Amino acid sequence: MNAGRVTGRVWATQKDASLEGRRLLLVQPTNFRGAATGPEIVALDTVSAGIGDHVMYVSSSEATIPFRPGLTATDATIVGILERVDHVDGSW
Amino acid sequence: MNAGRVTGRVWATQKDASLEGRRLLLVQPTNFRGAATGPEIVALDTVSAGIGDHVMYVSSSEATIPFRPGLTATDATIVGILERVDHVDGSW
Amino acid sequence: MNAGRVTGRVWATQKDASLEGRRLLLVQPTNFRGAATGPEIVALDTVSAGIGDHVMYVSSSEATIPFRPGLTATDATIVGILERVDHVDGSW
Amino acid sequence: MNAGRVTGRVWATQKDASLEGRRLLLVQPTNFRGAATGPEIVALDTVSAGIGDHVMYVSSSEATIPFRPGLTATDATIVGILERVDHVDGSW
Amino acid sequence: MNAGRVTGRVWATQKDASLEGRRLLLVQPTNFRGAATGPEIVALDTVSAGIGDHVMYVSSSEATIPFRPGLTATDATIVGILERVDHVDGSW
Repeated sequence: MNAGRVTGRVWATQKDASLEGRRLLLVQPTNFRGAATGPEIVALDTVSAGIGDHVMYVSSSEATIPFRPGLTATDATIVGILERVDHVDGSW
Repeated sequence: MNAGRVTGRVWATQKDASLEGRRLLLVQPTNFRGAATGPEIVALDTVSAGIGDHVMYVSSSEATIPFRPGLTATDATIVGILERVDHVDGSW
Repeated sequence: MNAGRVTGRVWATQKDASLEGRRLLLVQPTNFRGAATGPEIVALDTVSAGIGDHVMYVSSSEATIPFRPGLTATDATIVGILERVDHVDGSW
Repeated sequence: MNAGRVTGRVWATQKDASLEGRRLLLVQPTNFRGAATGPEIVALDTVSAGIGDHVMYVSSSEATIPFRPGLTATDATIVGILERVDHVDGSW
Repeated sequence: MNAGRVTGRVWATQKDASLEGRRLLLVQPTNFRGAATGPEIVALDTVSAGIGDHVMYVSSSEATIPFRPGLTATDATIVGILERVDHVDGSW
């Protein structure tokens, strides 16, 4: 899983039926110290994440797992809100 | 999901049977501010996207989900037309 | 799907049983204007592509779809021969 | 499989149900000589890896295999602790 | 499929049960002219490849196909030993 920070929300009236009723969150991928590592993505949410939350997300086909047995057209899903990092270089 | 802009269409008479009758759209991957992030790809379409539309697309095996239960040989599918982005840095 | 140009063919007598009898084509990944974008790959073929053809191919697990219901150990398969590109910047 | 070094642990009270009760380890991806190759990730663990261990991990949907038949929302799982590398350039 | 050269072997006593009894080969990814293209990986083997062999390998979930119907926690598997490359720029 990779780390990211929720930076917003996107809106799409025309969307695949499997995405109906799901929040589409903007996530800035970061390292575990909070520095940006690449372009923002849109992720689905399983943990009621809010703007500014530091989260971890799964990508690729694993992103569909929290929504099984249905099939949801997502390749990125937030699966946890990061509370604490214990690192050999310290905690934060 | 990643953002992109529809920039064209490609034509292939000889193609895998699972792609017969499907529009093959050229998509320029972008960030959510519209700047290009990599080479164009071909994506299938589930939302009747048109040239110039800002869209979000899924890649990898999730791209096949909107076409199930059949199996379609695609690794990129447009799943939404972006209407509005609410970002911590503003909306657009 | 990504674009590429068929640049050759590779030969492997010792290979996984699921690849027996299949042509192994060298493909130079390109953008849709024909410029190389990364190292060559080996792809399987579903459209009788020949040397020099501009093609589109799927990667990842979608590459196995044209060969179902059997399971074929491939992560790249040519699924179309590009005939024409209609682009907002012109056609070619 | 890629190499990495376990550098810490993260904590997430709110997380996808499939991750309940699983240790979330921070892994620094490295080459097989121990040099960092990219940003840290969070991986699940199947081998009781500890801080500082050199490990190999699988990514993408293969990361779910050690936890089957259940479906676990992970895209990175440690599958071995590296003990020894025999390399054409020497052993370490 | 990508090209690589077998550069060694790694040993892991503690490993996922699905990897028991399988050789873990170090592979240096290369282009089809033999130049390194990225960090070494560990791959499983289906063709009795030896040190120094030029091989092609599949990555991602296709890497599990040669070991079906069982599920093996691998994301890279050697599926052929390269004997000859016929390229528009020559053969080698």
